[in-house]
Amino acid sequence: MDISAVNALAYEEFEKIFGNVVEKCPIVAAAVWSQCPFKSLTALEDAIFEFIDTLPESGKEGILRCHPDLAGRDLQMGTLTQESREEQSRAGLDALESAERTRMAQLNEEYKARFGFPFVICARMNDKANILRQLSERCQSERAAERARAVEEVKKICHLRLQGLVRTDAPNKL
Amino acid sequence: MDISAVNALAYEEFEKIFGNVVEKCPIVAAAVWSQCPFKSLTALEDAIFEFIDTLPESGKEGILRCHPDLAGRDLQMGTLTQESREEQSRAGLDALESAERTRMAQLNEEYKARFGFPFVICARMNDKANILRQLSERCQSERAAERARAVEEVKKICHLRLQGLVRTDAPNKL
Repeated sequence: MDISAVNALAYEEFEKIFGNVVEKCPIVAAAVWSQCPFKSLTALEDAIFEFIDTLPESGKEGILRCHPDLAGRDLQMGTLTQESREEQSRAGLDALESAERTRMAQLNEEYKARFGFPFVICARMNDKANILRQLSERCQSERAAERARAVEEVKKICHLRLQGLVRTDAPNKL
Repeated sequence: MDISAVNALAYEEFEKIFGNVVEKCPIVAAAVWSQCPFKSLTALEDAIFEFIDTLPESGKEGILRCHPDLAGRDLQMGTLTQESREEQSRAGLDALESAERTRMAQLNEEYKARFGFPFVICARMNDKANILRQLSERCQSERAAERARAVEEVKKICHLRLQGLVRTDAPNKL
């Protein structure tokens, strides 16, 4: 699908395709549809990032809380969204050794107890060793800085999900 | 469940219980959890309404676009959320006569073509005749006024969903 095809979508179809580019937050795609047509995929992405940035801090925390734990219950129960399942399995999180799984669970709980939202990282840009290391380090962060860092990870995830949905060739002439 | 029990919930549990008080917008409950503990159900409701009010206009339209058509495809296909199914059926929308169903579908399409979001009304406060009449009238509204009106309906729906989830007796002493 190229950006012209995206621009031709009714909001219901747009929502079906882009509703999960920010995990479990269909409101984001539903909101930016107001700005359709988009000149390019970059323009669509910019609109999404700008919408996220305009949310109050509680809204940004809300986005984070809509994310599943990494290598957590949803992965074990098979209740992840398709996108999360693919991303977590590509990073090797569905094949942790027992000690790694225990360590990940402990750190996830420590992180959530400290910040009140789950650890979010772009799994496709990291392997499991790297994820464990960063989770451990970020457990020590200051709250506002950590929230900002996590939102940047949300945007990286969104960027890659968008790349998987829209062809990025010549921009559409408007 | 009373407000003390609500305040004792981890965000994951809070999210499971209140994630759909605004239809398909779990970010709303996830965001207001940041303000936990709540003095009363009214305080929780106020936090939700305030969050909605602080969204940019595109975000309010996003919330509206997360709502299903009344007596539409989701009702026919059985893909409504449990809350919507109960509300639509209580208003008699699952038992329309053929002519009513056709009229409702035509007006829904007319409304969406005009405004770019679906017709939202608190079905539990209306019967099918009243809903059809208001749908027909609101098709003639001015866009900004109609968006504001629809957001008021979202709040009425949310109010009733909250009433069904939390006991409203004496406020919690904090």
